Amino acid sequence: MIWIPSRIVTLTTDFGTRDPFVGVMKGRLLGRFPEVRVVDLTHEIVPHWPAEAGFWLSRSFEYFPAGTVHVAVVDPGVGTARDLIAVSGREQVFLAPDNGLLAPVVAAIRAVDIFRIDRAALQRLGIFRASATFHGRDIFAPLAAELAAWRCRAEELGPRITTLVPAWLDEPTVEVGAISGQVVTIDHFGNLITNIDA
Amino acid sequence: MIWIPSRIVTLTTDFGTRDPFVGVMKGRLLGRFPEVRVVDLTHEIVPHWPAEAGFWLSRSFEYFPAGTVHVAVVDPGVGTARDLIAVSGREQVFLAPDNGLLAPVVAAIRAVDIFRIDRAALQRLGIFRASATFHGRDIFAPLAAELAAWRCRAEELGPRITTLVPAWLDEPTVEVGAISGQVVTIDHFGNLITNIDA
Amino acid sequence: MIWIPSRIVTLTTDFGTRDPFVGVMKGRLLGRFPEVRVVDLTHEIVPHWPAEAGFWLSRSFEYFPAGTVHVAVVDPGVGTARDLIAVSGREQVFLAPDNGLLAPVVAAIRAVDIFRIDRAALQRLGIFRASATFHGRDIFAPLAAELAAWRCRAEELGPRITTLVPAWLDEPTVEVGAISGQVVTIDHFGNLITNIDA
Repeated sequence: MIWIPSRIVTLTTDFGTRDPFVGVMKGRLLGRFPEVRVVDLTHEIVPHWPAEAGFWLSRSFEYFPAGTVHVAVVDPGVGTARDLIAVSGREQVFLAPDNGLLAPVVAAIRAVDIFRIDRAALQRLGIFRASATFHGRDIFAPLAAELAAWRCRAEELGPRITTLVPAWLDEPTVEVGAISGQVVTIDHFGNLITNIDA
Repeated sequence: MIWIPSRIVTLTTDFGTRDPFVGVMKGRLLGRFPEVRVVDLTHEIVPHWPAEAGFWLSRSFEYFPAGTVHVAVVDPGVGTARDLIAVSGREQVFLAPDNGLLAPVVAAIRAVDIFRIDRAALQRLGIFRASATFHGRDIFAPLAAELAAWRCRAEELGPRITTLVPAWLDEPTVEVGAISGQVVTIDHFGNLITNIDA
Repeated sequence: MIWIPSRIVTLTTDFGTRDPFVGVMKGRLLGRFPEVRVVDLTHEIVPHWPAEAGFWLSRSFEYFPAGTVHVAVVDPGVGTARDLIAVSGREQVFLAPDNGLLAPVVAAIRAVDIFRIDRAALQRLGIFRASATFHGRDIFAPLAAELAAWRCRAEELGPRITTLVPAWLDEPTVEVGAISGQVVTIDHFGNLITNIDA
């Protein structure tokens, strides 16, 4: 993939805004790459519900310029053995745990490359797992900074893989006179949001 | 109006922060003008209550430098025929639907120029109404980026007009021993906020 | 203290995000120093509870680069006679009212210099107390901008002092088989947060 970095990193989490954890991630991003522009997509994902994060991200990425790095951290499995992945497509990169979160993004883009982030790649970038529980701060933020600064590329992060943890929600099905989808979340105005597109 | 752009765009909406819509507007702003500095005034305006947005904006703009562009999207009429307007004054520009939202700003500045944004001007800037319902993303964000980047000026956006949809709230009235105002909103600390200034 | 400015200013307040007061502070910051990068730590501190602000700040500052300026405004005494202070240590500067807020930061860094901000220093920087009640906008924001722009240093802000208003919470005590601490706040996920570190 050839791309020009936009210097933009978006953040999608279930961290909320009461505590300083999002701010701390931004400190790490700016510390590694002072020219980064950080955009909050949302930090109000329903806690431990990756499906909502992937849904919103799959409906949002197209409004960002080529070269944008998207970080999504909704991670019920943090602290256990699960992979971290990088998905590249449409000249953008998506970083998330391999827990089904990025399935809607992969379905939307179709032509993607997927890489399993390995420890050796992180070490080459000077990124070490300082904590067992805050990978947003200790891994995703510095990694996104390196990608946004164009100091590494997604394909250098680890081996290419072809299978992902499956999506949390089924894609909508269309039959004669009927469409079936699933409720993803409730929006700011109290509307139920389903995964059926207009 | 002669002004030096501050590269600042402020956002005032009733979108909330649960959904990624504000983030998507920022993607559009940064895509058009990578040097923009976006400041959130608030996204917690009472839904469909333009009076609160205009009230806060009229109390906030003076703390921003000359050249700032303010975008306010509280738009109960979205999807229907209503105009979009640009108000320029005090070396700043304000963009909003013509629904009474900007009346408190006009009252505060007094010497303003008001322009009705026309389709031809938008087309010259490469801005097309992609959706019927998300003008914040499809019109206001790219337009604010163009203004903030100093690639167009308010007076190029359409014909000058002299009448606006009236304010939602009456200005306070002062009589001997009595001042009458109206409640605009409730603040973070639970205080009722009226439009009576100290 | 010798340091290179990171151009980062963090904000920690109890202002919430319903009202535009945080946005107005950012207007002031950008007006004085257009290159500033503002990071919100949190604006959801329990109103008038400086202990929580100091707690989160003391757990967050180490993730920011040298040269960062931290502003914390949780100020039950605003409008009364209380000092404003600047604490410098670990190549960072912390600005807050002298109300015990910064005690956890001082305890965490240990080797700090503390200065009482005096009126003469503010006047030299062109900062005047425009209001009796919004020192975040009228004093802290412009002062943080000057420090972040490296146009003044903490030691120029007033006399060095050695005593502070004491902390709101006692440091945890450790006895054989028992640790005693205090509850600081409740986090986004509903957990009680104490001041006992792992």
